Amino acid sequence: MTTKTPRIAHLGIAVRDLDAAVAFYRDVLGMPVGTREVVGDQGVEVAFIHAGEPEIELLRPTKADSPVGRFLEKRGEGLHHVCLQVADIRAELRRLEALGVPLVDREPRVGAGGHLVAFLHPKGARGVLIELEEKRSS
Amino acid sequence: MTTKTPRIAHLGIAVRDLDAAVAFYRDVLGMPVGTREVVGDQGVEVAFIHAGEPEIELLRPTKADSPVGRFLEKRGEGLHHVCLQVADIRAELRRLEALGVPLVDREPRVGAGGHLVAFLHPKGARGVLIELEEKRSS
Repeated sequence: MTTKTPRIAHLGIAVRDLDAAVAFYRDVLGMPVGTREVVGDQGVEVAFIHAGEPEIELLRPTKADSPVGRFLEKRGEGLHHVCLQVADIRAELRRLEALGVPLVDREPRVGAGGHLVAFLHPKGARGVLIELEEKRSS
Repeated sequence: MTTKTPRIAHLGIAVRDLDAAVAFYRDVLGMPVGTREVVGDQGVEVAFIHAGEPEIELLRPTKADSPVGRFLEKRGEGLHHVCLQVADIRAELRRLEALGVPLVDREPRVGAGGHLVAFLHPKGARGVLIELEEKRSS
């Protein structure tokens, strides 16, 4: 794929119990389970579920005072964010900033899998928390 | 692809203003716009955005008293559902029912694009509204 348009890399789902959520997708829906890791910077433990080309990322907060912890407190378990893969995350952030799009992160951070990530603010994206990701091939 | 495991077909996003939402994904994020149609049975007008292999389905209620209309009233604009493509939707519904998974639709209905669709209840899917879809090749 050499397209330069953004594509969905994964869909983030906030859960309280990661083992129970993994069991639901694996045993009830029959979907393969991928890697699992703690992303300390964001206060989450994540588990990936293979769902075709994009993945489902189940997110369990490792502390209440974290973005996903506050989301669960306010809205309960459910769809949390959509991650779009882009070719050059810094260029994309500069382009969006020039358009006046509200950003959570003006500079990329290192997210799950060691990829570069940054979030747009939902208030500028019609209520959707959008994550941008530039894949790091290691 | 001949895999029998479910894969994400699209991600549904509830919006109040379909033209404004389409403009955001097309003009701000640079994503190609696909087809647009009214699904009268579900009280929505939908527009598809190409986001890699899965699509984003923007959903605008055509009447307040509809599932998406009630969702907007309660939660505002945002992520609404995830649609998983399955090979045989009737067999999948029977399998899930036998497992005790709460279903919104025990029989498939005709959804956008003429495909067969059915929803699982979020209370059985850790807060996520999951749609199953069997593609109809016409």
